[in-house]
Amino acid sequence: MTLTTVTMADFTPKHFLWRVEGRVAVIQLNRPERKNPLTFDSYAELRDTFRQLPYADDIDAVVLASNGGNFSSGGDVHDIIAPLVSMEMKELLAFTRMTGDLVKAMLGCGKPVITAADGVCVGAGAIMAMASDIRFATAETKTAFLFTKVGLAGCDMGACAMLPRIIGQGRAADLLYTGRTMSADEGLAWGFYNRVVEADQLEAQALDYARKLTEGPTFAHGITKTQLNQEWSMSLEQAIEAEAQAQAICMQTKDFERAYRAFVAKEKPTFGGD
Amino acid sequence: MTLTTVTMADFTPKHFLWRVEGRVAVIQLNRPERKNPLTFDSYAELRDTFRQLPYADDIDAVVLASNGGNFSSGGDVHDIIAPLVSMEMKELLAFTRMTGDLVKAMLGCGKPVITAADGVCVGAGAIMAMASDIRFATAETKTAFLFTKVGLAGCDMGACAMLPRIIGQGRAADLLYTGRTMSADEGLAWGFYNRVVEADQLEAQALDYARKLTEGPTFAHGITKTQLNQEWSMSLEQAIEAEAQAQAICMQTKDFERAYRAFVAKEKPTFGGD
Amino acid sequence: MTLTTVTMADFTPKHFLWRVEGRVAVIQLNRPERKNPLTFDSYAELRDTFRQLPYADDIDAVVLASNGGNFSSGGDVHDIIAPLVSMEMKELLAFTRMTGDLVKAMLGCGKPVITAADGVCVGAGAIMAMASDIRFATAETKTAFLFTKVGLAGCDMGACAMLPRIIGQGRAADLLYTGRTMSADEGLAWGFYNRVVEADQLEAQALDYARKLTEGPTFAHGITKTQLNQEWSMSLEQAIEAEAQAQAICMQTKDFERAYRAFVAKEKPTFGGD
Repeated sequence: MTLTTVTMADFTPKHFLWRVEGRVAVIQLNRPERKNPLTFDSYAELRDTFRQLPYADDIDAVVLASNGGNFSSGGDVHDIIAPLVSMEMKELLAFTRMTGDLVKAMLGCGKPVITAADGVCVGAGAIMAMASDIRFATAETKTAFLFTKVGLAGCDMGACAMLPRIIGQGRAADLLYTGRTMSADEGLAWGFYNRVVEADQLEAQALDYARKLTEGPTFAHGITKTQLNQEWSMSLEQAIEAEAQAQAICMQTKDFERAYRAFVAKEKPTFGGD
Repeated sequence: MTLTTVTMADFTPKHFLWRVEGRVAVIQLNRPERKNPLTFDSYAELRDTFRQLPYADDIDAVVLASNGGNFSSGGDVHDIIAPLVSMEMKELLAFTRMTGDLVKAMLGCGKPVITAADGVCVGAGAIMAMASDIRFATAETKTAFLFTKVGLAGCDMGACAMLPRIIGQGRAADLLYTGRTMSADEGLAWGFYNRVVEADQLEAQALDYARKLTEGPTFAHGITKTQLNQEWSMSLEQAIEAEAQAQAICMQTKDFERAYRAFVAKEKPTFGGD
Repeated sequence: MTLTTVTMADFTPKHFLWRVEGRVAVIQLNRPERKNPLTFDSYAELRDTFRQLPYADDIDAVVLASNGGNFSSGGDVHDIIAPLVSMEMKELLAFTRMTGDLVKAMLGCGKPVITAADGVCVGAGAIMAMASDIRFATAETKTAFLFTKVGLAGCDMGACAMLPRIIGQGRAADLLYTGRTMSADEGLAWGFYNRVVEADQLEAQALDYARKLTEGPTFAHGITKTQLNQEWSMSLEQAIEAEAQAQAICMQTKDFERAYRAFVAKEKPTFGGD
């Protein structure tokens, strides 16, 4: 390929942990003693990282893992809320747009994102889980969209649009108006979490899920992600035409031919992402 | 504030019951002997009341309560269906638009609406529950979108748009095609009802839920409601930008600062809705 | 009526089974020894059949039934995937548009479609179930959107738009990225299936459900179907206005008046679909 690509195996972010296992990038916030809050710096660096991922030739999936038994406590009260309280509108909008840009970057990164949320998963942390494709939890995971608790609205980083599509409008309204905790049982029953597993299995299962995706037709996975987000506000007829075009593109990949050859040969296909 | 506002504590509607507890308005249809049907008059007065609520300085939440063990039997057969049968198209459309205007007014009233539905909750009554933000029921609540039973389509007052977002497209189709009763168990499992409680606790729990919302950041709650409805048909990118703007507005409220000051002082915040 | 209509009771398709019971058409794919795969021919003939149905005066509902213990294994590997592998883009797009046209034709046929899926229900077979209005299964039904297994994306024939509306965005993502089987229990709990019944009752229950719909206000049912699909991407305000118009139309039907007369006479209404 002549387009400029990058490799991210040796990426060394300043404000969160990053490692690559196979073709899976693992991201962890890294202030476990404070349950992994987000700061202005980590927001910005996460946004830039997800914006880089479409061009990363060596990464095919992302796991957002927990650290020290917790996923994330969201925007830090001291590092973020304190300065926001005295900002002018122009700066406030710059901040809320930056947080929204993190979600847009996650949705646009072209690769499946799997969140493995243990313990505290609240505020902007819950939003990062929500903006992932797949979500695993433990019985101890406490998920809360607690913006209302700090005097704000439930509409943060896309929550009023995305949460109703995941768990239904009525349950989303309850969580967003009250900021109450959604238990792991509720999260599983309502379709927010795809699995609830033992804490000592959480990261391994998320990694295994991600690894299997990287062994599949990764170009096609990227199209699946694009369409899942792109068709959100299309009419049914528009969506069906969009999928006709998108799937026709995938039918010209080598992976489609590889799968067919393997089937005929009664073998397991080996995909290449091209 | 120099904009004209109103107070509704002393409002005395003609066609339903109204009382105010704290900053919560409680509405009850008032023909319990006929399970609280709607009439042309009560439709119109409810529509006008919800249209007034955005300007009511003394009300921050609404409870739609049951009366005599039932929520509502919907449009009255004698008072409504009888005249409709002989109406011309112009009048029919005026009627269906008026009923739709009630839903639009509920969605646009700027304040959370909590339905406490006991017993019969059918037809336009089920629609009013559906158009609420939060729904509580009892084990005896029987909810049915029974338009098909009177020869009509399931698309009444927004049902084909809203019900699928609450309980999913497949379940909504079943209820709307057949007009069958959704049990309280189904309603809870499917996310239509947020809680199923004992009949003698129903109104108290709805009031308590509403009261807690009125003690929260009510300006922000209004923004949450606006965004939950406004983002319905936006693209994801549009919704994220809309939330960036909406949340930046909330960050300039005193309630946001109050919550921060209380957190620092290790106190419970006292919100003012400004 | 002076518009040209057709009768389909004597329709004799070449590539699937067709029979009419009362006013219900029953369709079965007919290669049970290979679990009822779709071919280019059966795709095209199904598309044409559903396109004909709006004009069929003698059919008011459709049942897609299983055959030999299975619903459908989807696009045949030999008959469909083999030729696709060597096609040029123009042909590929013609194919994906044809499959999309089948879904558009099902959505636009004006009559409720009930799928009775036993056993294997995968690939394009799962899509046909998804594009139905009502879905019944047995405990043995295995449903999989297995496009990813053949190197393709999950966005096939509208799946990335429709599946999230039925079972929620998170569960849909899991099924579409992995191609894994959704069990009947999951399908019921998630709202994909409306009922799980004994295999020997499956077709009878689907037929009974369909028959009851044909005894109802079938013109209004057609409007319900139209609105359930049409309002998908409308704003709430647009949807409410669209329903005001659609329901006003239904209020001028004889079925509406028949229902009212029957109610007053304390009889069961007899609907005529006009």
